[in-house]
Amino acid sequence: MEAVKEPEIITDKNQMRKWSRAMRCKGKTLALVPTMGYLHQGHLSLVDEARKHANLTVVSIYVNPGQFSPSEDLSTYPSDFRRDVLKLLSVPGGVDVVFHPYNLYDYKTDRRNVEEKEDNVDRSVGWRNLEGGGEVSCVEEKGTGHETWVRVERLEKGLCGKSRPVFFRGVATVVTKLFNIVEPDVAVFGKKDYQQWKIIQRMVRDLDFSIRIIGSEVVRDNDGLAMSSRNVHLSVVEREKALSVSRSLFKAKLSTTEGCKSSKSLRDMIIQTIEEAGGKVDYVEIVEQESLEAVDEIKNPVVVCVAAWFGKVRLIDNIEIDI
Amino acid sequence: MEAVKEPEIITDKNQMRKWSRAMRCKGKTLALVPTMGYLHQGHLSLVDEARKHANLTVVSIYVNPGQFSPSEDLSTYPSDFRRDVLKLLSVPGGVDVVFHPYNLYDYKTDRRNVEEKEDNVDRSVGWRNLEGGGEVSCVEEKGTGHETWVRVERLEKGLCGKSRPVFFRGVATVVTKLFNIVEPDVAVFGKKDYQQWKIIQRMVRDLDFSIRIIGSEVVRDNDGLAMSSRNVHLSVVEREKALSVSRSLFKAKLSTTEGCKSSKSLRDMIIQTIEEAGGKVDYVEIVEQESLEAVDEIKNPVVVCVAAWFGKVRLIDNIEIDI
Repeated sequence: MEAVKEPEIITDKNQMRKWSRAMRCKGKTLALVPTMGYLHQGHLSLVDEARKHANLTVVSIYVNPGQFSPSEDLSTYPSDFRRDVLKLLSVPGGVDVVFHPYNLYDYKTDRRNVEEKEDNVDRSVGWRNLEGGGEVSCVEEKGTGHETWVRVERLEKGLCGKSRPVFFRGVATVVTKLFNIVEPDVAVFGKKDYQQWKIIQRMVRDLDFSIRIIGSEVVRDNDGLAMSSRNVHLSVVEREKALSVSRSLFKAKLSTTEGCKSSKSLRDMIIQTIEEAGGKVDYVEIVEQESLEAVDEIKNPVVVCVAAWFGKVRLIDNIEIDI
Repeated sequence: MEAVKEPEIITDKNQMRKWSRAMRCKGKTLALVPTMGYLHQGHLSLVDEARKHANLTVVSIYVNPGQFSPSEDLSTYPSDFRRDVLKLLSVPGGVDVVFHPYNLYDYKTDRRNVEEKEDNVDRSVGWRNLEGGGEVSCVEEKGTGHETWVRVERLEKGLCGKSRPVFFRGVATVVTKLFNIVEPDVAVFGKKDYQQWKIIQRMVRDLDFSIRIIGSEVVRDNDGLAMSSRNVHLSVVEREKALSVSRSLFKAKLSTTEGCKSSKSLRDMIIQTIEEAGGKVDYVEIVEQESLEAVDEIKNPVVVCVAAWFGKVRLIDNIEIDI
């Protein structure tokens, strides 16, 4: 039996890069699993996947303010760094480094000497609405603050991009930052965030990152609910209602194998199922797997994507239909 | 006397990265000088500067369609690869690699086996106006073509950003690509393209590239004209007229040392000088060196930036005033 591997915890980006470069020069390959922490079995499956593709595994834990708008749930996003590290200890083979930076958008202060606050990190960051409107995230600043954003202009528009206008530019930007700090050979993303996975793949191609992107399958609880850090905010009753999402997705997939190829009737069924359970649908879309463009009739591989609210919690889920 | 160093010519991006990584693991540091070719003494001064900051020097030569709008001068941008390589041979100490990719936006074809066309490269790329308007560059495509752009949202707006709306996102994007392919420790940019230099500095900070950006001084011909690849398109008469740009900038700097701190009177003088010479002013702006924000009165270090047309040629120039 393998001994439990204690990961090295790195909070400084320069130290992180130094470690990565030293390993590369030793001929080691490196996999990155970017997370926002509050790890669950879904994240651990990403780590398992990562270990298949590289010699060493880095898990980053960073709640990225750049992908939240001021009206979203940055302040209540769950966090428990100690528990996360304990969970990573349970992964067979363990992980090599946990990269846990303090604030990736603070360019004024050298945080290397600041005592780390760990579980109780203050994520408050300034933001102000920029003149001339436009999209605003929690790191928007005037003056000499952060102002560079990576946009994947077509793929970011649909699905979650409609109701979360700063989300994907925030994701693409922080992933670019993490890639430039960690310099991995491989990075693993969960297919539960399907659009995010596709956007990162496209970005890596378009910006010539030398990184292979792996999509890892959705992990579900026994009752079918896709695992998400946000599930912790669901009450027992809301959680019961939320099962309507996966239930309707499974039903949709079954219907297509039984011959139903009409996006409209599948969407109607899913919307009805979720609404009858008491959820509020944000969107139900049936899109091509590569372009994420909506289809009327299922002729090629598609993915059925859902976002819905249960109380104050917005959940997403999807199912691939390979035809 | 040092022997003339023949640079290695690399056209394939994977080969370029492989070379760079091999050198890094040997402990060598690497400087990149990104150019669009048609090299002049200004470029060679960037190479000189680069050699001061790293063990090895890579010069990239690539006319980037992503920074031209369809109405701009991509098709007539001058190019002579053989002559460029000869010029680089004349730099004391030489350069180690010339990176000369074929098309950095073509993700379909593996160009590694395509015979290189060198001087006569076909740069034609498809573009179509995207639905919903927006900015269009020569690489804009629908479907699965390139769609990722790096935006430095505040600094890109003023000065040249006003009349060339796709320019800086094209520059930031191709420089990101080059950084990810060449993986240098240092990159050198000419301060003649002042806004570009500042944008790249900001981008490197915001995206956590581990690259030091060096700004290199403007190089001028004996008559004062700032060197530019586009100068070749000036007729003798236009060239004479174009001298009004540097002449007025020198005069403005002199005026400030003599006590004139009013942006308005300096701008008026510059505009009048250029117009009287027969140029057509695009803009004259006096801006803070860091924020590039216009000032009414010169109290802090500023840069006076000019863009003007002489015939069909648009020239830019600037002068720093450190107060």
